[in-house]
Amino acid sequence: MSLARTEVRGEGRGRVSAFARRLLREWRRRGWPARGEDVIVAVSGGADSTALLLALEELKRVGLLDTGLTVAHLNHGLRGEQGATDARWVSELARSLGSACIVGRASVAESARERRDNLEQSARRARYEFLAEAARGVSARAVLAAHTLDDQAETLLLRLLRGSGAEGLGAMAAERVLEEGDELLLLRRPLLSWARRADTEGYCRERGVEFRADAMNEDERFARARVRRRLVPLLETFNPRAVEALARAAALLREDSFALDVLAADLLEEARDEDEAKDARAAWPLRVEVLVAALPALRSRALRLWLARGRGDLRRLSRANMHGVERLLEGTRGGRVAELPGGSSVERRRGLLLFRRENG
Amino acid sequence: MSLARTEVRGEGRGRVSAFARRLLREWRRRGWPARGEDVIVAVSGGADSTALLLALEELKRVGLLDTGLTVAHLNHGLRGEQGATDARWVSELARSLGSACIVGRASVAESARERRDNLEQSARRARYEFLAEAARGVSARAVLAAHTLDDQAETLLLRLLRGSGAEGLGAMAAERVLEEGDELLLLRRPLLSWARRADTEGYCRERGVEFRADAMNEDERFARARVRRRLVPLLETFNPRAVEALARAAALLREDSFALDVLAADLLEEARDEDEAKDARAAWPLRVEVLVAALPALRSRALRLWLARGRGDLRRLSRANMHGVERLLEGTRGGRVAELPGGSSVERRRGLLLFRRENG
Repeated sequence: MSLARTEVRGEGRGRVSAFARRLLREWRRRGWPARGEDVIVAVSGGADSTALLLALEELKRVGLLDTGLTVAHLNHGLRGEQGATDARWVSELARSLGSACIVGRASVAESARERRDNLEQSARRARYEFLAEAARGVSARAVLAAHTLDDQAETLLLRLLRGSGAEGLGAMAAERVLEEGDELLLLRRPLLSWARRADTEGYCRERGVEFRADAMNEDERFARARVRRRLVPLLETFNPRAVEALARAAALLREDSFALDVLAADLLEEARDEDEAKDARAAWPLRVEVLVAALPALRSRALRLWLARGRGDLRRLSRANMHGVERLLEGTRGGRVAELPGGSSVERRRGLLLFRRENG
Repeated sequence: MSLARTEVRGEGRGRVSAFARRLLREWRRRGWPARGEDVIVAVSGGADSTALLLALEELKRVGLLDTGLTVAHLNHGLRGEQGATDARWVSELARSLGSACIVGRASVAESARERRDNLEQSARRARYEFLAEAARGVSARAVLAAHTLDDQAETLLLRLLRGSGAEGLGAMAAERVLEEGDELLLLRRPLLSWARRADTEGYCRERGVEFRADAMNEDERFARARVRRRLVPLLETFNPRAVEALARAAALLREDSFALDVLAADLLEEARDEDEAKDARAAWPLRVEVLVAALPALRSRALRLWLARGRGDLRRLSRANMHGVERLLEGTRGGRVAELPGGSSVERRRGLLLFRRENG
């Protein structure tokens, strides 16, 4: 590590690197506040998060950003001594840049075993819990994560390989709430819509900072690493700008998905049987005739939304289950039932779809 | 070729192969007429189209389908003697099955040079023109093409590599009009939503028919062949059912895209300035306030639709052009103009977007 050089090579006030300028442009385009806000920067020590931190520091140094930065780093406990070394490296980097740093330690492998999650899911959950806690600890309004265009393209590909529709293929949002139920704490991804991995690596080199290899990114036990190392390079033989093309598709599909969700919620409202109480969160009876006349893309989303309200979530609900509910809309015959996992069910009766709880 | 064996191995009336049964199920599910209609079957001689023809013949033989079949085969003129051999093989197959056969001959390479098209586009155009002509010649209502789940997945991947949104990623329709302007002649794809290439090859072997290698499918000058031979096998190392997953995504996105197009047309109607004449095909003035309040996914589609009406088509219209038009909606200032290729333009004035023809 050569943080000393960072300071030596740092541009004087007014001269800002191209990378930091692009970051600032994105920051403004999103309407994120340039001063007076405290944020957490999630830093693994890989090129992406190191570049994000360095660029934020650069913008603060020249007065273009005036944000309280706290670095947060989680040691996932997956790589023994290496993980501890990374944690020390990130702390030292933060210190040299004058930022506070919070280091956490998780036992991802154990909690994966306990919860029967895969390692990726478990690492992700531990990371987000840690970041939320860190943010609340310093009263930060936002957590910044350094996902790039490459991550976005990889996410789209992973979802595509699972047969996702627009909702999944929209991949990551540039801004969303970090945890359901806390609307005041946001996750922001300032690199997502413009930075390639080569840009973050180049900027770290420009600043003379030797970022750490991100072990999760290299480990081919993880599907994401195989997508990165094998699939994306092949796609680039077809189109050198394949990553940009995929990220663009994700952005368009995210916009589509948002519109369809809004319109599906309208449809649900329209389909509500008027005799029912107006509890906006309940799975009220729905009029079959309204659903039958609706556009299929809206109908299927409205039914998912309705079932999520009735059941509390969509867990364990398969495509076959959804299909069973949609089939109730065919024909004119009532008295039919579609059973759902967990004991709840949907019945068609007298022109209505009725949601029945397990003990209903 | 061993067509003699076909007859020997053919099942007796009442015993129908699994492949033909699935074809019949799809046929009924789509509501396509089982009798009284003449159709063209496009047959290259490859496994897919040979299997389609053989299965149609099987269903006719046992009386489950009563459709006049005419085989159509185009020699694209790309492979010299081999092309002529294929054409003879298809004619002989059709004859042995008791079907009429129309063979056409194109000079795809020449017309590609003349029109500065790539070979794939040019071959495609020649093929569809030939099929439309063949259909009209025998008063057929539909042309059947043998695209499979594999073709659908490949189409999605090719579009994804170009950065398409939902419209492109929806890939191929199971039914559409063959040529714009002739609503009475349909292109149908009876294998698209269920058959894998392995199914068509297996069924040909079951029938003892040695289909031809489809040269276009093997020729790595064509991006589609590279997708098939390199990309799809890699995707299958992630998910053995990747082709099905991709085809499923295409189906969902096609449904989404349809819904969004319908709703965008509604938005265009709603945004129409009421003082204007009600010519449904014109690019009438649009009220900025309505567009600004609309969902982005609908607004961008409505503007594309509007520009297509104004200009006659969307040719040469880039993303930057679309962006320029959308930017007119920002802020409150009128008097701004977005120029479009070909000399037309859009002006914002007094709360309206106005389309101006080149000589307007």
